[in-house]
Amino acid sequence: MLITLTDIQRAAERIGPYVHRTPVLTNQSLNQQVRARVYLKCENMQKVGAFKFRGACNAVYSLSDEQAKRGVCTHSSGNHAQALALASQMRGIPAYIVMPNNAPQVKKDAVSGYGGQITFCEPTLEARERTLEGIRLDSGANVVHPYDDERVIAGQGTAALELLEDVPDLDVIITPVGGGGLLSGTAIAATESKKGIRVIAGEPEMADDAYRSMQAGKIVPSVSPKTIADGLLTSLGTLTFPIICERVEQIVTVSESGIMDSMKFVWERAKIVIEPSAAVAVGVLWEKKIDLSDLKVGLILSGGNVDLNRLPWQ
Amino acid sequence: MLITLTDIQRAAERIGPYVHRTPVLTNQSLNQQVRARVYLKCENMQKVGAFKFRGACNAVYSLSDEQAKRGVCTHSSGNHAQALALASQMRGIPAYIVMPNNAPQVKKDAVSGYGGQITFCEPTLEARERTLEGIRLDSGANVVHPYDDERVIAGQGTAALELLEDVPDLDVIITPVGGGGLLSGTAIAATESKKGIRVIAGEPEMADDAYRSMQAGKIVPSVSPKTIADGLLTSLGTLTFPIICERVEQIVTVSESGIMDSMKFVWERAKIVIEPSAAVAVGVLWEKKIDLSDLKVGLILSGGNVDLNRLPWQ
Repeated sequence: MLITLTDIQRAAERIGPYVHRTPVLTNQSLNQQVRARVYLKCENMQKVGAFKFRGACNAVYSLSDEQAKRGVCTHSSGNHAQALALASQMRGIPAYIVMPNNAPQVKKDAVSGYGGQITFCEPTLEARERTLEGIRLDSGANVVHPYDDERVIAGQGTAALELLEDVPDLDVIITPVGGGGLLSGTAIAATESKKGIRVIAGEPEMADDAYRSMQAGKIVPSVSPKTIADGLLTSLGTLTFPIICERVEQIVTVSESGIMDSMKFVWERAKIVIEPSAAVAVGVLWEKKIDLSDLKVGLILSGGNVDLNRLPWQ
Repeated sequence: MLITLTDIQRAAERIGPYVHRTPVLTNQSLNQQVRARVYLKCENMQKVGAFKFRGACNAVYSLSDEQAKRGVCTHSSGNHAQALALASQMRGIPAYIVMPNNAPQVKKDAVSGYGGQITFCEPTLEARERTLEGIRLDSGANVVHPYDDERVIAGQGTAALELLEDVPDLDVIITPVGGGGLLSGTAIAATESKKGIRVIAGEPEMADDAYRSMQAGKIVPSVSPKTIADGLLTSLGTLTFPIICERVEQIVTVSESGIMDSMKFVWERAKIVIEPSAAVAVGVLWEKKIDLSDLKVGLILSGGNVDLNRLPWQ
């Protein structure tokens, strides 16, 4: 199924009452440091602390009342799990979340805090998928994949729509890329609503499957990626990959030190808390592998969920 | 000299081209936690990371060209030193900063980074004042006190003016109080421009000289205060004290754990970096010593300068 600008605009209307319109901030020190005019779209200030709430919310509110009654389900240990739990709580329907039994306590607590019903399984992809399938068959719940889902992709695209409403003359938009939900949604929203705008993604060097997939022209799965940007460990999906190939100019890899240094710089100078995955977008400018001098660059800061007791520079 | 709303409005015009109009953010988790509708005026995102730039900028740009040529001077090891150095750099005039020789390297570097000319002295108030007087006599520079200066007080009041432009129907404004520059400027701006608005200050329990001064009806100096809110160690001044007595409803003391817990909560939930002194304003709501239920409360988050390698909860 083709996802269009209209789908994203409809998603924006649908989720408008439930999501935050996040602020767009600027910072002169950052501009000077990276030699560009940077606009920070603060999805770290979105509900549950990440853009993921947009896609989850669009999926939950796209269901008919009949479907909704049976709830939604997913397997995730990250921001998507919390996002789906909260969106379901808002609509008053059950959310069944499959989590690996080694997930951090803080993430389990967050999901149960939003009323998500957790089923634990062994920490393998096979166990997660099998457990999810069991739940789906028992409950009739609607599966909401973290990124390979049209409703989710359309929902994530709404952040770029808002950013372009606030700053219509952007030259470039940069997002991080993991599974590609945010990137593909952004790419559709941006390229369909503004001719000539460039969409670029940042990806950790140590988890560069999207970069390699674009080079190879086919999905190259991630093999034991290891990066502090723990939201970007997943591989591209069959829905997101072709959208990215068609609409994204390039994927730029960012070193671990580039991720950490840009994260710390944003905390220190822009005074906002971003997670390492969000810093990957900043890292594209930071490491200056490509020349975006003096351009107006929108950065989608994907999230701000970090453990303040364990910071990467300590 | 009486400081009026007009002085603050003129200050706003004067410094408008040089200061950031900082954003006003809201956060539902915080609202729920403190049971009020909170508006965060983000002076942590002001230039040099603190509201201090407003007052310093107003002082520097109030000088005649003749006065300006001879520069400005102050003694400070904190945000005011950086603020005065940057404002002077912008106007292209010298700033002579007296700092105690035990000031942290990071603060010395920040002041020199903005072109401030530092003179070191022994870390006593007597040595600081004597050194400053020597510089004043030699250079003819204009002394800009960190808070007991009409131009500074008027400058600090501009943050509240902006906040009230953005959220005109506030019931209460809360600021932290140290020397009282921010508090007195805010109190004039708020009470003169909106009838019935309440102005309340937060002060560390462990540095409660302003609280005790209001009780006593005279300035009770701070005696070896010890708090993580290191921007609030100073005592009230002869200019700020009477304004505060006249216009501030009350000063609420906040415990050290209240400061730290509200600071961490704001980082985790609102995703912004605030310093302990700014958290003191949040702490007034956090500790619920006074009832502000369901009111619209503006909090002036005074600054965001923290050492990310040494966080108080670690």
